[in-house]
Amino acid sequence: MSRFWSPFVKDLVPYVPGEQPKLARLVKLNTNENPYGPSPKALEAMRGELSDNLRLYPDPNSDRLKQAVADYYKVNPQQVFVGNGSDEVLAHIFHGLFQHGAPLLFPDISYSFYPVYCGLYGIDFEQVALDEQFQIRIEDYNKPNAGIIFPNPNAPTGCLLPLEAIERLLQANRDSVVVVDEAYIDFGGETAIALVDRYDNLLVTQTLSKSRSLAGLRVGLAVGHPDLIEALERIKNSFNSYPLDRMAIVGAAAAFEDRAYFDETCRKVIDSREALVEQLTARGFEVLPSAANFIFARHPQQDAAELAARLREQGVIVRHFKQARIAQFLRITVGTPEMNLALIDALNG
Amino acid sequence: MSRFWSPFVKDLVPYVPGEQPKLARLVKLNTNENPYGPSPKALEAMRGELSDNLRLYPDPNSDRLKQAVADYYKVNPQQVFVGNGSDEVLAHIFHGLFQHGAPLLFPDISYSFYPVYCGLYGIDFEQVALDEQFQIRIEDYNKPNAGIIFPNPNAPTGCLLPLEAIERLLQANRDSVVVVDEAYIDFGGETAIALVDRYDNLLVTQTLSKSRSLAGLRVGLAVGHPDLIEALERIKNSFNSYPLDRMAIVGAAAAFEDRAYFDETCRKVIDSREALVEQLTARGFEVLPSAANFIFARHPQQDAAELAARLREQGVIVRHFKQARIAQFLRITVGTPEMNLALIDALNG
Repeated sequence: MSRFWSPFVKDLVPYVPGEQPKLARLVKLNTNENPYGPSPKALEAMRGELSDNLRLYPDPNSDRLKQAVADYYKVNPQQVFVGNGSDEVLAHIFHGLFQHGAPLLFPDISYSFYPVYCGLYGIDFEQVALDEQFQIRIEDYNKPNAGIIFPNPNAPTGCLLPLEAIERLLQANRDSVVVVDEAYIDFGGETAIALVDRYDNLLVTQTLSKSRSLAGLRVGLAVGHPDLIEALERIKNSFNSYPLDRMAIVGAAAAFEDRAYFDETCRKVIDSREALVEQLTARGFEVLPSAANFIFARHPQQDAAELAARLREQGVIVRHFKQARIAQFLRITVGTPEMNLALIDALNG
Repeated sequence: MSRFWSPFVKDLVPYVPGEQPKLARLVKLNTNENPYGPSPKALEAMRGELSDNLRLYPDPNSDRLKQAVADYYKVNPQQVFVGNGSDEVLAHIFHGLFQHGAPLLFPDISYSFYPVYCGLYGIDFEQVALDEQFQIRIEDYNKPNAGIIFPNPNAPTGCLLPLEAIERLLQANRDSVVVVDEAYIDFGGETAIALVDRYDNLLVTQTLSKSRSLAGLRVGLAVGHPDLIEALERIKNSFNSYPLDRMAIVGAAAAFEDRAYFDETCRKVIDSREALVEQLTARGFEVLPSAANFIFARHPQQDAAELAARLREQGVIVRHFKQARIAQFLRITVGTPEMNLALIDALNG
């Protein structure tokens, strides 16, 4: 604390990301990274960008990347916003679209960065409880609100809300922005981008950190009505003219262009998840139905915090949240079959 | 405008960066990029990072880069903050340190992003006029304020405030944060980082976009008392856990480590500036004394806007600001001797 701080700073409770250990030997199943590397074409595009041209600023509008996203989703580039990770995109959304004198609504068990953004921008919020099966019940969102946001599949549960439920939510909230945070959608869900042309209150966010294996590059995006995108552009252009560097623009664009590699690696992760769920279930774990690249599991006889500590001693890191309702769960990233085997071995050990 | 926007969004007047033309053939003297490429060691470090490891998140604390900066300036890593370009660093400074119920002070002719940040965060400000020679007069800042910020050398004038004047300003404003924005310091000034251990109200920002030839990589930093740095870390961790990607962390660290290349390219730019000033002066231009990698010049008989348009027709882009007091000036980035020759040829043509 310092007298120089703006008053709100002392009350900030920052987000705590999963550990990024500096030891190489650990089996890292704690931050939902893809076990497979990025598209070789993305690496090649970045190699081509590594030159004296780095002395020049990047394209402030990231046109090449917006076009690649627009082509992939068959939307217009004016419906696409890009930023320095979906965290930055979400921050601008909270700032630019959620200040309307009513609480923002999101699930009680959800991405733990949401309340942090509310703290940063002074946004009132209300957490809406998931049901007993840890599912979002859209009827519970029928109340005055300044906006609604939820991950789909939800994090850290992995549970998917079907597109028809999202459409009902959009219809019931015509005067609020509904943000569907699709960080994990490619591992088993259907994107709500299909609905953006019909609902001007829908904004869909995605990241290249999971299904496109580029967590180290920091690129995220939002797709929605051009009026919503314009709010984000105004904030971006009042914050940082060039949020994406030259490497990120070309690497991310090439990753979107390489559909074959993307389809293949997503398929491998999904297969690996199904095998992992089977193995954990056989060992007595209860596993929530997952459409993501992680699973959320608890064991009726084993304390989750102790289990996480024991796994870590054996070189396997998973994520445990000390939080009401989910304190007995572990969130485990789906690895390669070999990484999953290391997890199972560590559970046996 | 849309009913979904947070109310302040409609009043935002975003910053307009200099043009990044997509044509290759232009002589680009409009955005103060370094005419020389980045350190070969920076390129090599990035090449080494281009691998499947990009699937993993970067170090959220950018420890390697903070250490490189700390070593370079002989400070402690706890006195160093890093971000996605100095624009992001400045945004966090405005948000986290300048909300104190008095106006923020900065020069009337200065970095045009400052009033934009004030708009974004609702900060009251007062622009303090430069004197008739376009110099900062520190006595003019003796009034109640929520903080003081100015570039040194100033932009777009290029004029330098000596360190002893900065020290007097710090002494006269013990209860306000004074931010010295040193984007251009390496081209002829002495850094105020020398004063951070003596003044807990001093924060110095720098960028790797100019003297370190990495505009395309987006890295900036701040150095100051750990209490000031902590405010920035709190905001950063409430905004985006990983603002610097893996390429940026290693490339920027390697650039700081390669002193020989840095010294050599800075020297070449300074020599090139002195030659350019001489040539322009010989052609009747009045050139303000510059300690930056650009010069600010006017011609008593030629209209600046027309001159800029004529240069552009001949493939040379410089920057012109349609702004009171400086509408007859051009800001011209210092290029290589060859680029400067192209400018002089275009002026003759």
